[in-house]
Parts: sequence; structure tokens; C-alpha cells
Amino acid sequence: MAWFEDFTVGQKSGFGRYVVDREEVLDFARKYDPQPFHLSDAAAASTHFGRLAASGWHSTAMTMAMVVANMGEDGDVGGSLGAAGIDELRWLRPVHPGDVLRCETEVIDVIPSRSRPDRGVVRTRMTVFNQDDVPVMTFIPIALFQRRPATDRTAK
Amino acid sequence: MAWFEDFTVGQKSGFGRYVVDREEVLDFARKYDPQPFHLSDAAAASTHFGRLAASGWHSTAMTMAMVVANMGEDGDVGGSLGAAGIDELRWLRPVHPGDVLRCETEVIDVIPSRSRPDRGVVRTRMTVFNQDDVPVMTFIPIALFQRRPATDRTAK
Repeated sequence: MAWFEDFTVGQKSGFGRYVVDREEVLDFARKYDPQPFHLSDAAAASTHFGRLAASGWHSTAMTMAMVVANMGEDGDVGGSLGAAGIDELRWLRPVHPGDVLRCETEVIDVIPSRSRPDRGVVRTRMTVFNQDDVPVMTFIPIALFQRRPATDRTAK
Repeated sequence: MAWFEDFTVGQKSGFGRYVVDREEVLDFARKYDPQPFHLSDAAAASTHFGRLAASGWHSTAMTMAMVVANMGEDGDVGGSLGAAGIDELRWLRPVHPGDVLRCETEVIDVIPSRSRPDRGVVRTRMTVFNQDDVPVMTFIPIALFQRRPATDRTAK
């Protein structure tokens, strides 16, 4: 698992495969985003969505599922202290049932903390593509990572 | 329901009441964000969360549920064309089971489209508070609205 020292600007990664399920789209929308175009093809037909489209917040949730699956199976989060937030989230294209999503990431900033020398901020550009290699969503997670402990540095 | 002309910078609104349910926190985390601190009190105890905390993406979803409930019951979205995206999402404090969330919004930008005179962009600062009036999350939705149709203007 990753520590702050493991990141450099320009690092790229591709991972994930998430099949967008119709019942899951409806279930998410009923609970959290019950706007007509997220609930039926008929209501979506008269909008720019054209047909049933996933809530944008469902798209972020499905992306997080791919991110966590990519972290590894052992539950060891390494130096990760979680995310402080997200910048520039953009929903570029509708996500429809049957779509297959995947992720591409690129590290864009690696910033040591001035106040806490044991940690730093890593900003990454996340792009989510569908099965046609069309980008459907982009955002920039602002992740906090600890530096690798000294004992761990000498051991490796 | 609202059209582009209905927004002015500085407009404020408060709405929503969402009781964060423990089983719902676990259900969301299992599906979309199965990191240990979102799955058990024991795993969260050794982190800055202290005890079981909702996924940040669950917090955005719960907030969207409050936003949609506040839109009205008739399914008429007025001039809303949905959101292009979100700026400056920040998770400020953990959200725990038993918390009660509410929303405060303030319009910060009302920008007519240069290319499409029938519409414009409305940027709003959203702040989500818990039952102790502590802000737990902020973000800026970038919403697109059509201008009120001429027929509608003369009719009202």
C-alpha cells in the first residue's frame, strides 16, 4: 500500500470494471435522487438524457467502489489518511444501464504539508470512461498520505 | 419551480432533515466504499473517525435526497437542466449513525450563457450541518437553468 513518498507527478494508472445495473440505478435513485429521468425511460425520453440515466452521485459511488477494489484485499491502507475533498467534479455524459465503466488516474500534484512534516497532499485527476472509451465523468480527489515510517523505510 | 431569472446572488435557503441510519451507512459502505472505518466501530476506533463513519459519497447522496425533497412533489423541474458538476467538495467532519443532517444554501454566482441566450449557470454554496450545528460538508453545485419561456412570462 502507498505512502506519500510513493507518488510523483505524472504517474498514471488504469483499473476497474463496473457494469451499470438497471435495478441498481433505480434503487439508488429511489433512495437518493428521485428525479423523473433517474426513475424511468419514459420520463428521461423528453430530456437530454434520452433514456434512463444514473444519478451523478451514483456514478461517483460506483467509481469509489472501483477505487476501493483497486486498493487491495488486505484492508491495509498504508499511509492513506483519506480524502479532504474533491475539486472540479464534472458529469460529462449520461451513464445508462448496461454501460461498463472503468477508471484512469494521473497524479497532478504532490504537496508536502508545511505544518505537518509527517504527511502531504496528493491530487489526482480521475477520468471515468464507458465501454465506448467516452469520458463520462472527471474529478480531482484531494488525498492525504502519511510519509512511510522510519522503521518501515529501513526494513524495505 | 425555478427558472434562471428567479436567482440572485446572496439568496439563502435552509431545508431538509435526514437522520443517518446505522444499517444504511453499512449498506452503502458494503456496496460502494468498503473501507474498514465505514464498516465497523472497531476498525474506526483507531482512525481519526473514532467510530463508524459514513462514506463521504454517502453524505453527498443523503444531501441530494434532501435537495430533491425540497424541489417539490409534482415532478415539475421548472427551468432546471440539471447540474454540470460540483466544485470544492470538502468533507469537514465525520458523519456518524444517529446524526441528523440539514442543508443551508446561498447563491454565489448567476451567469447568463454567452453562447445560449435561453439559459445560464447558477452556482450555489451548499453547507450541510449536523444536529450540533457543526458544518460537516460543503460544496458548490454548478446548476444549469433555462430562462422562463415568453408565454409563461406573459401568463404570470
